[in-house]
Amino acid sequence: MRVLGIDPGLRNLGWGVIDVDGSRLSHVANGTLHSVGDEMPARLLSLFQQLGAILIQYAPHTAAVEQTFVNKDGAGTLKLGQARGIAVLAPAQYGIEVGEYAPNKVKKTVVGVGHASKDQIAHMVKMQLPGAVLTGPDAADALAIAICHAHHFTSRARIAKALA
Amino acid sequence: MRVLGIDPGLRNLGWGVIDVDGSRLSHVANGTLHSVGDEMPARLLSLFQQLGAILIQYAPHTAAVEQTFVNKDGAGTLKLGQARGIAVLAPAQYGIEVGEYAPNKVKKTVVGVGHASKDQIAHMVKMQLPGAVLTGPDAADALAIAICHAHHFTSRARIAKALA
Repeated sequence: MRVLGIDPGLRNLGWGVIDVDGSRLSHVANGTLHSVGDEMPARLLSLFQQLGAILIQYAPHTAAVEQTFVNKDGAGTLKLGQARGIAVLAPAQYGIEVGEYAPNKVKKTVVGVGHASKDQIAHMVKMQLPGAVLTGPDAADALAIAICHAHHFTSRARIAKALA
Repeated sequence: MRVLGIDPGLRNLGWGVIDVDGSRLSHVANGTLHSVGDEMPARLLSLFQQLGAILIQYAPHTAAVEQTFVNKDGAGTLKLGQARGIAVLAPAQYGIEVGEYAPNKVKKTVVGVGHASKDQIAHMVKMQLPGAVLTGPDAADALAIAICHAHHFTSRARIAKALA
């Protein structure tokens, strides 16, 4: 089963693809997308198209997106929300099931504690995906989200549904 | 020139279509879309598909989306942001220029003051679009956004671009 993890963001959208074979995880690819354009419609469209290209290239069976929000201001959260909407819509449009995880859940699953630094996450991602070359912090987070999603496929029924 | 106005929301997404001929405005249609499904991916996909159907049916030359955000909490703003991302992406995907207006700007353009009640907005929308039957408050807001957008096409170049 192939899993796509997405760390949503308007400026930097991290993505990571892993393969899951029973309890064995292996790294496929990771990267960071940047929205192009000055205005919101162009930026959202460019993210949507770039994410569409990733979905076509790697053909994941399932996807997961982090449930982040910015605490400091409404405008920042609204911007992030728009990028997140695109990140959730793109796989859904291809009929791919999309899981959603809070940042604490991702950290707890991958690092073992709810509060972990970016460095700790990157370290654990590399441990769990031998040979993976992390292209940046957002891509590392996206791989962590993919690992979290892989671990939370607890029922066979859910896996079967994702593979259908 | 045909204008689509969108009042974004996850539960209720208002839309309104008007035709603009010089300074003459006329009503075409209005309504409210409701997201279907329990989880965010399904809800966003359903809004995207319903909005796509509206775009195909009415073929607007340009669109406008309200720039709202919820002040009370980050989670609410993030949800609205996701719906807004879909509302902006859908027309952008069809190559339609998308304008963005703050609620105060819409009210000031349509009612004359930055702070106006829903009833006042609906009243002025009916005044400016004779014969329009408003299907609900979100649809009335969407028509107000379309009227605002029509009024803010100040340069011929921008109109030409929208019609191209």
